[in-house]
Amino acid sequence: MNKALNIGVIGCGYWGPRLVRNFARQSLCSVTMACDLQEDRLAPIRADYPYIRTVTKASEMIENADLDCVAIATPVHTHYPLAKAALEAGKHVFLEKPLTMSSSEAEDLVRIAEERNRVLMVDHVFLFTGAVEKIKEIVSSGDLGDILYFDSIRVNLGLFQHDVNVMWDLAPHDLSIMLHLVEKKPVAVSAVGSKHPSHNMEHVAYISVRFDDNTVAHFHVNWLAPVKVRRILVGGESKMLVYDDMETSEKVKVYDKGISISEGDSDALYRALVQYRTGDMWAPRLDQGEALYKEAKYFCECVATGTQPFNDGRAGLEVVRILEKADESLKKGGTPVELI
Amino acid sequence: MNKALNIGVIGCGYWGPRLVRNFARQSLCSVTMACDLQEDRLAPIRADYPYIRTVTKASEMIENADLDCVAIATPVHTHYPLAKAALEAGKHVFLEKPLTMSSSEAEDLVRIAEERNRVLMVDHVFLFTGAVEKIKEIVSSGDLGDILYFDSIRVNLGLFQHDVNVMWDLAPHDLSIMLHLVEKKPVAVSAVGSKHPSHNMEHVAYISVRFDDNTVAHFHVNWLAPVKVRRILVGGESKMLVYDDMETSEKVKVYDKGISISEGDSDALYRALVQYRTGDMWAPRLDQGEALYKEAKYFCECVATGTQPFNDGRAGLEVVRILEKADESLKKGGTPVELI
Amino acid sequence: MNKALNIGVIGCGYWGPRLVRNFARQSLCSVTMACDLQEDRLAPIRADYPYIRTVTKASEMIENADLDCVAIATPVHTHYPLAKAALEAGKHVFLEKPLTMSSSEAEDLVRIAEERNRVLMVDHVFLFTGAVEKIKEIVSSGDLGDILYFDSIRVNLGLFQHDVNVMWDLAPHDLSIMLHLVEKKPVAVSAVGSKHPSHNMEHVAYISVRFDDNTVAHFHVNWLAPVKVRRILVGGESKMLVYDDMETSEKVKVYDKGISISEGDSDALYRALVQYRTGDMWAPRLDQGEALYKEAKYFCECVATGTQPFNDGRAGLEVVRILEKADESLKKGGTPVELI
Amino acid sequence: MNKALNIGVIGCGYWGPRLVRNFARQSLCSVTMACDLQEDRLAPIRADYPYIRTVTKASEMIENADLDCVAIATPVHTHYPLAKAALEAGKHVFLEKPLTMSSSEAEDLVRIAEERNRVLMVDHVFLFTGAVEKIKEIVSSGDLGDILYFDSIRVNLGLFQHDVNVMWDLAPHDLSIMLHLVEKKPVAVSAVGSKHPSHNMEHVAYISVRFDDNTVAHFHVNWLAPVKVRRILVGGESKMLVYDDMETSEKVKVYDKGISISEGDSDALYRALVQYRTGDMWAPRLDQGEALYKEAKYFCECVATGTQPFNDGRAGLEVVRILEKADESLKKGGTPVELI
Repeated sequence: MNKALNIGVIGCGYWGPRLVRNFARQSLCSVTMACDLQEDRLAPIRADYPYIRTVTKASEMIENADLDCVAIATPVHTHYPLAKAALEAGKHVFLEKPLTMSSSEAEDLVRIAEERNRVLMVDHVFLFTGAVEKIKEIVSSGDLGDILYFDSIRVNLGLFQHDVNVMWDLAPHDLSIMLHLVEKKPVAVSAVGSKHPSHNMEHVAYISVRFDDNTVAHFHVNWLAPVKVRRILVGGESKMLVYDDMETSEKVKVYDKGISISEGDSDALYRALVQYRTGDMWAPRLDQGEALYKEAKYFCECVATGTQPFNDGRAGLEVVRILEKADESLKKGGTPVELI
Repeated sequence: MNKALNIGVIGCGYWGPRLVRNFARQSLCSVTMACDLQEDRLAPIRADYPYIRTVTKASEMIENADLDCVAIATPVHTHYPLAKAALEAGKHVFLEKPLTMSSSEAEDLVRIAEERNRVLMVDHVFLFTGAVEKIKEIVSSGDLGDILYFDSIRVNLGLFQHDVNVMWDLAPHDLSIMLHLVEKKPVAVSAVGSKHPSHNMEHVAYISVRFDDNTVAHFHVNWLAPVKVRRILVGGESKMLVYDDMETSEKVKVYDKGISISEGDSDALYRALVQYRTGDMWAPRLDQGEALYKEAKYFCECVATGTQPFNDGRAGLEVVRILEKADESLKKGGTPVELI
Repeated sequence: MNKALNIGVIGCGYWGPRLVRNFARQSLCSVTMACDLQEDRLAPIRADYPYIRTVTKASEMIENADLDCVAIATPVHTHYPLAKAALEAGKHVFLEKPLTMSSSEAEDLVRIAEERNRVLMVDHVFLFTGAVEKIKEIVSSGDLGDILYFDSIRVNLGLFQHDVNVMWDLAPHDLSIMLHLVEKKPVAVSAVGSKHPSHNMEHVAYISVRFDDNTVAHFHVNWLAPVKVRRILVGGESKMLVYDDMETSEKVKVYDKGISISEGDSDALYRALVQYRTGDMWAPRLDQGEALYKEAKYFCECVATGTQPFNDGRAGLEVVRILEKADESLKKGGTPVELI
Repeated sequence: MNKALNIGVIGCGYWGPRLVRNFARQSLCSVTMACDLQEDRLAPIRADYPYIRTVTKASEMIENADLDCVAIATPVHTHYPLAKAALEAGKHVFLEKPLTMSSSEAEDLVRIAEERNRVLMVDHVFLFTGAVEKIKEIVSSGDLGDILYFDSIRVNLGLFQHDVNVMWDLAPHDLSIMLHLVEKKPVAVSAVGSKHPSHNMEHVAYISVRFDDNTVAHFHVNWLAPVKVRRILVGGESKMLVYDDMETSEKVKVYDKGISISEGDSDALYRALVQYRTGDMWAPRLDQGEALYKEAKYFCECVATGTQPFNDGRAGLEVVRILEKADESLKKGGTPVELI
């Protein structure tokens, strides 16, 4: 247990035990504490990791001088106070998505982390999947050409949340993937949705993000779909890509398909000048490592080396800002809201 | 050839010969004339149907007193003048989708048809597929319960049109299906989209239609997708339905899935009160008849019996009105536009 | 820990820990001992279940008078001696598939179990999946009519075993399902296969089982396939069924499809007399319980109540007998071998 | 109509009109005659091709000195007498699959064609699909390495034939593909199958072909399956390939997957020495040309240039010989039959 970093995990509901397991497997850190308001969630942690000290008060953990880092997997509305306290106590913080309930909270955390020179990482776990890593590599290589659109669907008969609508629950995954892949400036967002008549939160929502070059990214999130679909299309000027997370093997497919248009000077010429191209399809081998393990490793390395992670507080803030504006648009019946 | 009705077909490009073939097979009518500006498109018609008289001037057909009906499959911008002339000459008119380029043109045609007591039918051919017929039956039976959302995708590496954007090309199919199935009043529409940098028309677009009960219908149309997807989800309060037109056999699947929510009086109770239900799935047998044949038959019957078709000028007008407002929203960056 | 039955698990490699977990969750029994030749496989068991006593000698467990039952998950060639010793020591035995390496061994175990009045259950775990339970219900109801064929595929890029060929590794699953569903007497078996040039065991094999009514069941098993397929077709005279284990949701589909043939008295009449029928498809909801948990529960109940399980030693023997004859046929280049 | 070759088509049922259409589109030949016993099948031919002379007696066509070639699409039992007469009259012959009802008939046709120096081509149309052409190219390049197995499924709720069993109806497609791709000598064949109780012919059959290197090819053909599957797996030592004819776009997929085995000298070492490899998947672009058009073109070219086609009488004979032996094995309950 003589490892460089000590980490504590706050929140041991659904996701917390996964954090415990994946941080416990790291060579750079030890999980030394775990915390939950409900004592019955701590017993299984102690059974599996007898060396972890469990507490029911977060303050007890945050004030512990032996801890270097805190990982937080609690309900969204508690992210801000817990992360703030931890950063102010000098801890590096690994925080669940969405980062906070509002962009002002997120900005505050970013500021504190920068002032104190602490790592603040948001758990955008999909960025560490073999699929998204490979897509990032392909997009960065320029193989797709300019990106003409980004289209995402994440629908299922999913667990209705009671404190946030479907956008805040599901869209952080796809927004973080989009922001990671598409190097364009989002300038406006609009959203529409439907509520179940007996439920106060939208269960289906459509978000459109407009970039400064007038192309769009679009997101469909839905808790009430009869089939499970998780699919992203990235339409490039040269090639196009499909990321289907429901596929068991070939999750990423790159299509050598597209059109090329030559400028013609008359209507009559027009049609002949659109060339359709259909070439090979290629499904690259993907890294099979567990995403959360890789992300936990990256967190430890960033802390150990003082590196700013790419999924830092600012990345989390960007997602929160879009969600906030999407909520605003939703309330205005879909009127686009500028992203300043 | 001693049939009750004589029909002429104007426009023998891609779709026209299909009209010829399907009207020629009817027992209630004879195709006696065909017209196209390009003489070389008429030769194959004559080869297959030596008894059909071919002309290159539409006026020659419209003025022909022996004709009872005219079917029009020409470029969209010619729909209005041709249909108007035909109706004014006393013909019943079968007109391709979209009905016209604008709602004022469509209103005009509707008015003329009603004044002259002529049948004006718009070719919303998907309404005559076995799939949509069966879905209509299921929705009407009330089995799905209240419809909470309607979600449609129609994407492909498709033929870029040069006179209309992707919405006017593809969305009439899905809008007509939605209007046929969902008995709610659309009150507003918004749309966003992207253009290919070398093309002046949107190749991808997302349309949202808001109903008077605040639920939404959503449409994704795309000419530049690497995969072909044609799928509609209908989310009902009791059951949900998927119509996947790319399936070769079971195109319609009804899922006995959903949630039921009981009102609880505290947060603590809340979660327990959402009940998830997953039951059987059922894929009904669908009528395999050719949709266009069935629609042509229905046109003849409406003419013969003086029945107002459900896919009449007003149905076509509704689609055009939504497209027109969607275009307006597109130009305003996605701001919702009211449907009066 | 005051439960009716004490059980010990021998073999803690891949499958053994699953047995420990599923027996540990039963209300009717306690797992009190675990055994493996390799001490390092026992440490994780102790960590998770501190109350389980672990030993490295099977004899120590078998001789323990406090144990009522023994579950065995060791390499196939050790099944016979271990199960024999356990039965002779008066234990009830739960034994992995395939039951033994030969039918004579299997017969011996069956005999001993019956003489000693002990439960001998073979782990045909697929029989306890919601899918096979539902299929059994459907077949038993007579809905499919007479079964005309049974076709099974189980292929993958799978782990090459070094002590048995692909038939002994994979086919027990499908043979046990077939014997459970099809109430006909198998009278002959034939098999062909291919070996990888650097491996001494068949990696692909095709097994045909002929029934007394001259219909066949057929099995394709393959360790060297690029795609994972696990699909069973059951062709009934009235309806047909597909069980696709790779589907995440609708694993079982019942097709109201088939033909009916009326006897005609001339060739000319013949064709007209075959009627093809295509009706609805139906995918029943399946029990989602873990198969192994349900099987472990059934074992405990059989022991507690003295019930003879349907997946008893005789069921295991039937599978071994077919595999033995299939091996014989394989060696004879595919010549069918009678099942006495 | 001043083309080099005149061809007549005998048999205008299901397939014949396709032959007419595809030969009519060739630049090297004219279809000048068509023949069918049933006059009502000839009328549509005349309507579409007014210049084609139609007759109801085959002899009238065969004796016509103006004809260079005859294409025959009649019931199987008439292939031999018609083709024989045509060859003896000096015609080049394009003959439907299967070539004949027996290998002795096939040998006779091959002999006559060779003596008279006429082209005898069998319609193994799948060899002219873009998919099989590409697979042939891949296999020939050596990319797959040695072929370890060939596995084919062709099942559907298909039309029951009354003069041949399912093997003679469907397996010629897959046997011709296999013989085209796999350059090994088939040495034995076995087959099992089931009959529908009211039908005298097998509706499902499994054929195994053993090669001289002891690897196998296997074929599943079935007229009574609830789902349509047409899939071929080719397992190579280096790579593996799937040809799924039901896919609309990527029909051929090449998987960089496999195992490599190093020789170890002990059991303990064994497992470590099997290396599993999973790399990229690649779906090559396929030629989209109509297979029958390409085959008709090839026939004309072979006739014009005096080239021996690869799908000649000997290729047809090989298929017939395997089917004949498969029938023999079927009658013997699956006992393998040597291929001389």
